[in-house]
Amino acid sequence: MDAFRNRIGGFAYGGDYNPEQWEPAVWREDVRLMREAGVNIVSLGVFAWASLEPEPGKYEFGWLDEIMDLLHENGISVNLATPTAAPPVWLTHLHPEVFPVMADGERFGFGNRLHYDPSSPIYREYAANITTKLAERYSFHPALAMWHISNEYGPTAYNEAASVNFRRWLQRRYGDLETLNEAWYTRFWSQSYTDWDQVEVPHIPRTWMNPARRLDFKRFTSDALLECYLAERDIVRSFRDDIPVLTNFMRFFKHADYWKWAPEEDAVALDIYPNPADADSHVSAAFQYDLFRSLKGGQPWLLMEQAASAVSQWQLNIVKEPGRMRLGSLQAVSRAADSVMFFQWRASRGGQERFHSAMLPHSGPDSRTFREIVDLGREMKLLAPVAGTTSRAEIAILFDWDGWWGLEETAGLPRQDLSYPDTVMRHYTPLWSNNHPVDVVSASSSLDGYKVLVVPNAYLIGDEGVRRITEFAENGGTVVMSFFSGVVDECNRVRPGGYPGAFRQLIGAKVDEYWPARPHEVFSVEFADGRRTTSTWWRDDLHLETGTALATYADGLLAGRAAVVENRFGAGRVVYFATLLEQAAFDAELLAAVSAAGVRSPFPQAPAHVECAVRGDEEHEYVFLLNHSGELDASVPFEGEGTDLLTGQAVSGAVELAPLGAAVIRRARS
Amino acid sequence: MDAFRNRIGGFAYGGDYNPEQWEPAVWREDVRLMREAGVNIVSLGVFAWASLEPEPGKYEFGWLDEIMDLLHENGISVNLATPTAAPPVWLTHLHPEVFPVMADGERFGFGNRLHYDPSSPIYREYAANITTKLAERYSFHPALAMWHISNEYGPTAYNEAASVNFRRWLQRRYGDLETLNEAWYTRFWSQSYTDWDQVEVPHIPRTWMNPARRLDFKRFTSDALLECYLAERDIVRSFRDDIPVLTNFMRFFKHADYWKWAPEEDAVALDIYPNPADADSHVSAAFQYDLFRSLKGGQPWLLMEQAASAVSQWQLNIVKEPGRMRLGSLQAVSRAADSVMFFQWRASRGGQERFHSAMLPHSGPDSRTFREIVDLGREMKLLAPVAGTTSRAEIAILFDWDGWWGLEETAGLPRQDLSYPDTVMRHYTPLWSNNHPVDVVSASSSLDGYKVLVVPNAYLIGDEGVRRITEFAENGGTVVMSFFSGVVDECNRVRPGGYPGAFRQLIGAKVDEYWPARPHEVFSVEFADGRRTTSTWWRDDLHLETGTALATYADGLLAGRAAVVENRFGAGRVVYFATLLEQAAFDAELLAAVSAAGVRSPFPQAPAHVECAVRGDEEHEYVFLLNHSGELDASVPFEGEGTDLLTGQAVSGAVELAPLGAAVIRRARS
Amino acid sequence: MDAFRNRIGGFAYGGDYNPEQWEPAVWREDVRLMREAGVNIVSLGVFAWASLEPEPGKYEFGWLDEIMDLLHENGISVNLATPTAAPPVWLTHLHPEVFPVMADGERFGFGNRLHYDPSSPIYREYAANITTKLAERYSFHPALAMWHISNEYGPTAYNEAASVNFRRWLQRRYGDLETLNEAWYTRFWSQSYTDWDQVEVPHIPRTWMNPARRLDFKRFTSDALLECYLAERDIVRSFRDDIPVLTNFMRFFKHADYWKWAPEEDAVALDIYPNPADADSHVSAAFQYDLFRSLKGGQPWLLMEQAASAVSQWQLNIVKEPGRMRLGSLQAVSRAADSVMFFQWRASRGGQERFHSAMLPHSGPDSRTFREIVDLGREMKLLAPVAGTTSRAEIAILFDWDGWWGLEETAGLPRQDLSYPDTVMRHYTPLWSNNHPVDVVSASSSLDGYKVLVVPNAYLIGDEGVRRITEFAENGGTVVMSFFSGVVDECNRVRPGGYPGAFRQLIGAKVDEYWPARPHEVFSVEFADGRRTTSTWWRDDLHLETGTALATYADGLLAGRAAVVENRFGAGRVVYFATLLEQAAFDAELLAAVSAAGVRSPFPQAPAHVECAVRGDEEHEYVFLLNHSGELDASVPFEGEGTDLLTGQAVSGAVELAPLGAAVIRRARS
Repeated sequence: MDAFRNRIGGFAYGGDYNPEQWEPAVWREDVRLMREAGVNIVSLGVFAWASLEPEPGKYEFGWLDEIMDLLHENGISVNLATPTAAPPVWLTHLHPEVFPVMADGERFGFGNRLHYDPSSPIYREYAANITTKLAERYSFHPALAMWHISNEYGPTAYNEAASVNFRRWLQRRYGDLETLNEAWYTRFWSQSYTDWDQVEVPHIPRTWMNPARRLDFKRFTSDALLECYLAERDIVRSFRDDIPVLTNFMRFFKHADYWKWAPEEDAVALDIYPNPADADSHVSAAFQYDLFRSLKGGQPWLLMEQAASAVSQWQLNIVKEPGRMRLGSLQAVSRAADSVMFFQWRASRGGQERFHSAMLPHSGPDSRTFREIVDLGREMKLLAPVAGTTSRAEIAILFDWDGWWGLEETAGLPRQDLSYPDTVMRHYTPLWSNNHPVDVVSASSSLDGYKVLVVPNAYLIGDEGVRRITEFAENGGTVVMSFFSGVVDECNRVRPGGYPGAFRQLIGAKVDEYWPARPHEVFSVEFADGRRTTSTWWRDDLHLETGTALATYADGLLAGRAAVVENRFGAGRVVYFATLLEQAAFDAELLAAVSAAGVRSPFPQAPAHVECAVRGDEEHEYVFLLNHSGELDASVPFEGEGTDLLTGQAVSGAVELAPLGAAVIRRARS
Repeated sequence: MDAFRNRIGGFAYGGDYNPEQWEPAVWREDVRLMREAGVNIVSLGVFAWASLEPEPGKYEFGWLDEIMDLLHENGISVNLATPTAAPPVWLTHLHPEVFPVMADGERFGFGNRLHYDPSSPIYREYAANITTKLAERYSFHPALAMWHISNEYGPTAYNEAASVNFRRWLQRRYGDLETLNEAWYTRFWSQSYTDWDQVEVPHIPRTWMNPARRLDFKRFTSDALLECYLAERDIVRSFRDDIPVLTNFMRFFKHADYWKWAPEEDAVALDIYPNPADADSHVSAAFQYDLFRSLKGGQPWLLMEQAASAVSQWQLNIVKEPGRMRLGSLQAVSRAADSVMFFQWRASRGGQERFHSAMLPHSGPDSRTFREIVDLGREMKLLAPVAGTTSRAEIAILFDWDGWWGLEETAGLPRQDLSYPDTVMRHYTPLWSNNHPVDVVSASSSLDGYKVLVVPNAYLIGDEGVRRITEFAENGGTVVMSFFSGVVDECNRVRPGGYPGAFRQLIGAKVDEYWPARPHEVFSVEFADGRRTTSTWWRDDLHLETGTALATYADGLLAGRAAVVENRFGAGRVVYFATLLEQAAFDAELLAAVSAAGVRSPFPQAPAHVECAVRGDEEHEYVFLLNHSGELDASVPFEGEGTDLLTGQAVSGAVELAPLGAAVIRRARS
Repeated sequence: MDAFRNRIGGFAYGGDYNPEQWEPAVWREDVRLMREAGVNIVSLGVFAWASLEPEPGKYEFGWLDEIMDLLHENGISVNLATPTAAPPVWLTHLHPEVFPVMADGERFGFGNRLHYDPSSPIYREYAANITTKLAERYSFHPALAMWHISNEYGPTAYNEAASVNFRRWLQRRYGDLETLNEAWYTRFWSQSYTDWDQVEVPHIPRTWMNPARRLDFKRFTSDALLECYLAERDIVRSFRDDIPVLTNFMRFFKHADYWKWAPEEDAVALDIYPNPADADSHVSAAFQYDLFRSLKGGQPWLLMEQAASAVSQWQLNIVKEPGRMRLGSLQAVSRAADSVMFFQWRASRGGQERFHSAMLPHSGPDSRTFREIVDLGREMKLLAPVAGTTSRAEIAILFDWDGWWGLEETAGLPRQDLSYPDTVMRHYTPLWSNNHPVDVVSASSSLDGYKVLVVPNAYLIGDEGVRRITEFAENGGTVVMSFFSGVVDECNRVRPGGYPGAFRQLIGAKVDEYWPARPHEVFSVEFADGRRTTSTWWRDDLHLETGTALATYADGLLAGRAAVVENRFGAGRVVYFATLLEQAAFDAELLAAVSAAGVRSPFPQAPAHVECAVRGDEEHEYVFLLNHSGELDASVPFEGEGTDLLTGQAVSGAVELAPLGAAVIRRARS
């Protein structure tokens, strides 16, 4: 990626480019306007399979040759895509079994994208073939700077080929049927398997699905998609191995375990479309950016797709108001993005996304959007020194696909309405609000170097995760954990020994029973120091063992029982929330635990509407100050002296920001 | 139709009659009560296929002979139906492929009606056969007054036969695949076709459907149904061509383009079931009646089906309260209906619609409903001179199926929740409230003779429509147009040159971007004269060119931009609404534009709860005054002198109406 | 059942036991804890098919031998289940046609239970085979006390085999197609059948389904399930006929007509999971208990499954708070349950129901739940004299599956939102609140001995039911009936002669038309004595004949018409509600009718939060006093002298109950 960064000269700036939708005359205007906008890279060919291989085995590369040359002549690099996200109609017409079948047996029809069963050997063969042809032809083209493998891997399929592949996957995982039966607890409801051929993908059953089988199907689907990626990646690498290869991921995407994918990517890349109608979408965006920085251990990541303004896939598609696209782009950069890229360069006249905004919108260059694109392109150049730098935190938050699937995809819980992203955001938001740097970790991540580990409702966690968390506390770390954690093992079986089986020693308490709350039920909670708050939604019927109560219920049938527990564990400390505290009280407790662990916010005085983040290298820090308010000015205290890269002006004492204003201040490391 | 009117002696009065559900003894009671009620026509055999052809090729016409004769002897004419809306079970049992398949691949089962794929050659063959047999036998029966082809054409099907027919339809439309690919913009997402066999009806895709393909499928489905109609019509015409032939249409029916159907009908006929639970259902009924009068250029139309009281197909089926059935019938007549007919004559004891009200209800002749039927029958005779007359308006409103499909059936818009019927009614209602006569026009209609053209949110409009509207303004007409009009061409492709591509010159402004509003967002709008109002839901980010602002936003990020635009265009005037004004302000602006165009309401002083409408011929006008209030009396100023046909009394100065009262006043044309 | 009761020694106490999920070491701990808890019976093998017959024709009975012996050695009886509710995967893998197909054609996949088409001859053959093997081996095992045939019969299927069986069922019912066509009123919409092969189960049609066909399909499905039960029952009986045989029913289960099933059971058994989140769930539970006592004419019934605390199948699974499981168990006993049994003994570690509570929960014996189980086990022994006794009422309420299906499963009614269970509970609740004993009757039950018959909205009722109700009134009974009763015959055809065809003479009035109310519409109603109340939702347009008005509408278009009718009929009296009165007024009228019929509550002075019920034999009465309040004490007046079996203390004058407290007082019959 260093070579790539050097080639690009700092930040990558550009977007998806689909010249196959336009006449060559338009191409020349495109390139001219790209240069005007400071575009230095485009993603090419993402959905061009039908244009490249209009009939099986018949190729048309002439137009791509021409456009690659044209871009190269104009100094624009190419992120060349394998077009395999959108199989042409001839493929599915010849082989309808490639269409994904849903859990209820319905088969999709043609007319969209991602319409393939990832386990289909036919799909894989055709995909490998077009990938090989592209790699043969363009691996050494001078415009080529990166390989973009397929697009937004996502399909889930219940085809016969999926069953075959699922069996293979299960055989690798479990070896024999006896182990499978044990893992899936098939003696419940007479579900035992006696022959591998009996094992199928989980078509919709009469009512609910075996929770372990469902869980394994989620894991399998992620792995089946990953197999598709790896096959194409290995083909392009076989021609040349000094070009970065990756695919583009999505925000809060439940169906692929990106912790397993990230090691196979040269960099992780994110497509993100924060909803302007959602007032908090920049907070969940910040979490995604921290996650993506963490996926490869702090390595800068790529913002591969965002919208210049509105999208078109929702029921209501609000525009990004003036200044917000720039602010959102700088926010990504502040959390270690090394690119700002868009879907797409030029708005399509037709097709499903004809109203999706673009860098060059239907209203042409004389438009608000294009002016903002040009302005941002200019600023990205000013920020070039920031590229390649990163950051590291003392606080880690657990975000784990197994835990997500366990909570949301497997029925039969005390209540079914716990959203894993929501609970993660509930834990992340107070840290973000206080400008605490946060890393994201999986259940398999090393926890070395962290002072605080936040564990939001980790219902399902495997033995390795349990061991890592336990050792982290033993070795002096502070663990903040929420109720309904550590309940089942990685096969979705209740851990023996009383709830929470994995963490009874860690939290110093046993839960006799989980008590979900009735709708609208509110409980009084009293802290040891007499402060009062309320909680809702859930209570553990909890019996202290080594732990002590930080807060207890002041009313109800559990009056006097602990609502928040503190447990000294080894050299560390555990704070356990046994109920859903109201947000302000929860935030205060969480931040108190962070503070008690010796972690300080680098921006303790920043106004509430200003987000602050730092990335840097051994010499410099780059301080990003971002005013998210469209109405309020802000004055942000600033320690030391620096230079605002966007204005070139010296900064000390305080930074003044207009509404939606931003500063990126270079400061020497002290 | 003149011959038909003469035969009937004025208005047709009657309903669907299903003697096959009853014993012959009941038939004689039926005919006696029909005579008591003034019934002069019945629709016969609508769902009688199984009774006429109980096994393939085995016919039983005896019962129909008998009932035809009996009706004829009693002076009751017959509107004889081909029974093809309800294929018998032997047909679908022999040929299950006739059952319509839905977009998700599910095939309907037997037990309803309209259970056929209109493209099925098998269905068409059997339908032609029974039609031929009926025509052979009854074309010259003296009771025959009209042919009722099938019933409420409607099924949409995704069968294999539909794909075959769709391909044929597309070949006629586009000639070659290259043109099809261009029209469908298939280079987006790699959707290009290289062989006609690859083209299928649009089964449900992974997410959204190609918007041009979807649009063509809507057009095709309407045409496939029309082919079915034409085939049967041509058969009965081949036996005798002096009997009117038609089918019955439905209110706000989205799946058949009645502008294309109407020229193939000898008269258009409407089935309408205004919901008594909806306080405004008489307003949308009025619009339908104006539409139906307009479909054949002012020719009187037929009210073919309505309910005597409650229906039974909804979750909640409110009765028509005493007097409302009569008032609603007169309302239809006031807008050029030449018949008042019902589904059905006698309530069925069993079957799906056993609780659908009837002229003769389950409670028998000694019932409120039957008494009202008898009374209305008597009044219809008094109104006989009105039959055959019609009316014409100076205001036209655009109502177009292409535009409807574009807005509601093709995803990917800035917001998806615009209802075409709702916006049309929003524009129609103030005109109706002020008793303005209104004609309805399509994008292909001649606009000669109109002073005002109202264009509600015409998102999709073809070049011919654009040309007609533009010329109408150039030649001095007033165009009232709402936002998001003229955006795409007839292939659902964004028109180039900046929004709104078709009407940028016409409205004298360019829209940089469409700004849908957040939920509950309200904007202040200020008129040039200082009046204030609010708007919601949508704003254009609009830049005036030749236009001037009639009103501007007083707050928000678009403060100062135009919210309502006036543009002098040629000899005409355009008023363009760039946002959704609150209703009162919108109504006032719309009516001001009408007034400025020199159009006056013929009933400027009528109370708000009284609807006034006029039909007439060269000699006479017939003024209908209809009091929709169930509680308030009304005094309606009346110009000139006339005679109330319902009472025979002379009228001058003012007409007094009791609650739910009505007057129909004949006045000599001045 | 007497022999069973003697063997058990009073009440059966225990639950489902699934030792196949555990190692033998756990079995010994289980048996030890069962003895500690007073368990005297377990239901064994309910879902053990795969453990008993892991491959077709290969049996493994060793583990079951061992557990049967172990239980017997410890004095625990066995309710041995045929495992046929959960076919093993080898069965459906070999014969996928056994999977039930839904109305839309979707076929279920493997991974649950009840995944069989009850009409499948293949399923029936395999089920008969495993049943035979079990009966051969265990019919004379000393632990065997009862046969538990399959489990919760319920599947509905639209398979081809179901069509074959449906035709056979229809041939038995109707003999020939002409009669079928008449019954189904197939001349409506051309639905007549001319060949039996044309008759199929009602796959989803284009819109709504023929109401008589739908009704017959409901009847057929119940009967097809019953055939499965009978086949297995007859097998086990063929080995030994002195062991009770039964299956377990469900609460408010719409898909099986338990009136037809009950005669085939040696006792009826109920699985019931009242929702702790529903404050009234104990009232509908009381109704179920009265129904189950009535199903076999007063014979004590078995509470076969309940939860020790929370369940896990809902979105929100609230725990039973301390004391409520005991109180609910005593409530069942008070209404003639002869057992208190649970699903299940030991909580499963995995599978769909891993969080369903159990007698022995995940938290082990040191848990609130297990302590409550032990305490209740001790109390059940104290209550042993109560077992076998029962009770009888003077009030009967009609609850009939035909009526239920007619109202809820057949579309086309004046309104579709009438819930049959809700209306039944609306009529039952005031009787329950006043501690009136109530029996439940079907339309075929004898009404001898009752003074009052309550008929909630009996839309569909056959001639026999009409005759029984009419004779009951003629002979001096009081009938309380709600609107929309007696409308259609058992083929869902409107009864002729004006509404309500079956009961026009009985209620002394004719209904011209049914007037469902608009949402939020409220009507004033005035009683003859001047009291005022309101009604909503529905009004009959009713014309008195022999009846007189107890109350009339005071406003609206029906002002002056009767809202509540009294009709003297023969020696009896009928009170008819023509509208939905507000609850308090309805309750008062219903209770006034009960009082006027000479029926007195045995507990007129009990506090509102205390439920009182009596069961007894010729010598003793057992008075149950149950305080449902978790907060209030109660003092309950008590007539005569007795002994509280739970405390052994003498009682007279009044009984004091703590919150959630209970007393069971033995009193000599006077």
